[in-house]
Amino acid sequence: MYKETLLMMPGPVPMPETVRNAMTKQAMNHRSKDFGDCYAEIVKILKPVFGTSNDMLVLSGSGTAGQEAAIGSFAKDKKIVSLVNGKFGERLGLISKIYGPTQMLESEWGHPLNLEGLAESLENGAEVVTMVHNETSAAILNPAEEVGKLCKKHDALFILDGITSIGGDVFKADEWGVDVAIVGSQKCLAAPAGLAAVSVSQKAWDRLSENRPFYLDLKKAKKSADLSPMETPTTPAVPLFLALRESCKLIEEEGIENRIARHQKMSAAVRAAGKTWGLKLVPQVDALHKASNTVTGFFYPEGIEDSKIRGACKKMGIEFAGGQDRLKGKIFRIGNMGIIDTPEILATVAAVQMCFKKTGYKLEGDGLSAAVEVLSQ
Amino acid sequence: MYKETLLMMPGPVPMPETVRNAMTKQAMNHRSKDFGDCYAEIVKILKPVFGTSNDMLVLSGSGTAGQEAAIGSFAKDKKIVSLVNGKFGERLGLISKIYGPTQMLESEWGHPLNLEGLAESLENGAEVVTMVHNETSAAILNPAEEVGKLCKKHDALFILDGITSIGGDVFKADEWGVDVAIVGSQKCLAAPAGLAAVSVSQKAWDRLSENRPFYLDLKKAKKSADLSPMETPTTPAVPLFLALRESCKLIEEEGIENRIARHQKMSAAVRAAGKTWGLKLVPQVDALHKASNTVTGFFYPEGIEDSKIRGACKKMGIEFAGGQDRLKGKIFRIGNMGIIDTPEILATVAAVQMCFKKTGYKLEGDGLSAAVEVLSQ
Repeated sequence: MYKETLLMMPGPVPMPETVRNAMTKQAMNHRSKDFGDCYAEIVKILKPVFGTSNDMLVLSGSGTAGQEAAIGSFAKDKKIVSLVNGKFGERLGLISKIYGPTQMLESEWGHPLNLEGLAESLENGAEVVTMVHNETSAAILNPAEEVGKLCKKHDALFILDGITSIGGDVFKADEWGVDVAIVGSQKCLAAPAGLAAVSVSQKAWDRLSENRPFYLDLKKAKKSADLSPMETPTTPAVPLFLALRESCKLIEEEGIENRIARHQKMSAAVRAAGKTWGLKLVPQVDALHKASNTVTGFFYPEGIEDSKIRGACKKMGIEFAGGQDRLKGKIFRIGNMGIIDTPEILATVAAVQMCFKKTGYKLEGDGLSAAVEVLSQ
Repeated sequence: MYKETLLMMPGPVPMPETVRNAMTKQAMNHRSKDFGDCYAEIVKILKPVFGTSNDMLVLSGSGTAGQEAAIGSFAKDKKIVSLVNGKFGERLGLISKIYGPTQMLESEWGHPLNLEGLAESLENGAEVVTMVHNETSAAILNPAEEVGKLCKKHDALFILDGITSIGGDVFKADEWGVDVAIVGSQKCLAAPAGLAAVSVSQKAWDRLSENRPFYLDLKKAKKSADLSPMETPTTPAVPLFLALRESCKLIEEEGIENRIARHQKMSAAVRAAGKTWGLKLVPQVDALHKASNTVTGFFYPEGIEDSKIRGACKKMGIEFAGGQDRLKGKIFRIGNMGIIDTPEILATVAAVQMCFKKTGYKLEGDGLSAAVEVLSQ
């Protein structure tokens, strides 16, 4: 029997029907009012979701394209500090190295960022700071507000990757002093993969780099977006824009506050289950660093194989993520981005518990009941 | 009444129903057999369409992204010659300037390329040559085979933009000595905009540049494509891949030879109409440079306004292109890419003839009959 797998990944995530169906529209001229209106509606809805009144540009490329657009447009040939405590922070660092002298301030994956090191680097003249807000590889939520304050104090540009938090968790680009913020379409926005939206502050525009990349040049994107109707400098992935507009409409309909509360509740339920099971959370939380509200990561207990839990759940039709790179085989991660709600969380938590029991491993307690309790509130 | 506009542009173009509907599929994990099989099927079908047995990589980005991937991956810090006789050749030159010392050999738009200049530059040590095969801005088909020979003779890399020819006109990457060839999804392949496919020769891999861009790094794309199942280094625009696979299936079904013959016949009909009308073709053809077989451009006669012809046709529901940049207002261009066939050509030629008559301009003859004659053969 063919049935779709329930994707409980930290992206891509299940898409609502209206979002999927929007893509079937016949091709249109992208230099037209129809397309411009679509782009404008996305921007109008996303600005409050980013917490910004800055410019907002949508690029035809993945979140990584958004990261490179930010760095290539504003950090080229500047002194960059990249804060790293996971795979995506590392990616920002690797991209930064292509464009300018980069100091990677690395912590263990899932451990707190090196904020003292950052303060020192800023004292020593660092001009740009890159950071991932919600580091999915280690399921940790990094302190955007605090880093924003440090950047402001030292007049550095703050590039913040909100790829997996924006639309699902609190994000206040302007209040936090974020100069460039990035979101990916296939995460909390629940749209198809392939678009990145980027907000840009005036401070960033004032410090535009020379000799920027071509396809990912945010200056060119702004020039086209400033036209009426709005345009993109090169041919956009039109079906993805049409789909993203539908996602945005659903976000507006739900209300961003409600949406964030839902994401927080779903992740709290998963965390409660894990705590009751006696599993160790991947992120090392402290006063500033929190467990992510859009993906929850647990270490496998000694001796439990990835395939026994994640592989078995996948066979049942529920797919969540394992660890990446150095965390491969050591952790599993349950996403709750986009339209994931109570039924999906219940099914997933129950499936995980079932698979652990099958392995013979004795979990400490009934995580499913703990999750139910959170979800019942 | 709502009715879709018939797009007779040099891309984007109308998409077949199966192509559009393929995009409604629920989100899938892109590191999976399902996605890998889709990618593999695209590659299998596109290789003969490119006329190549080289590696084939699909990027989530427009044709411009494909251009930059080629230049950023293989031409960085090398001596580049960019052949220019239109907007897209110029774009290759502008991208090249970002990555390495670039000589732009410019002809008037639509005039023959400066092949003597090229030979001289190659004698003087040029290492990479960029060229657009089918230059839509001036509706001219440039001599790929001859330039390929020159590149081979001087052991230079040949980057050929086949964005608007591949899948609609003869293209023989391997026979012509093309090292990197690029196609865009929304042109002759009749898929949605947003993907570029790029073929890469061993000679190009052997000369990979250092410090390549990140998102558009073809080396990374190859490493992921070499996995089993096939992958992409960053999240791909999955719905566009699914749609492109359906397009590819339709190309295979029609047969590439038949498809090319159809494109040639459709453009011949438009050219016949224009000749009978007494309009001047945009391209200056010679023994090596031909009129494009996927888009046909005519100069407006003195005193005829763009809006009187193109604007009036658009109001009737048929949209074709005007001139870009320096040719704006001076020319109009009728595309016949993808699934455009006899009915669409008849409707368009008839509409143009009708609109000319309405302006009071006296066309030399009955272009519609001339087109019918070609189409009847």
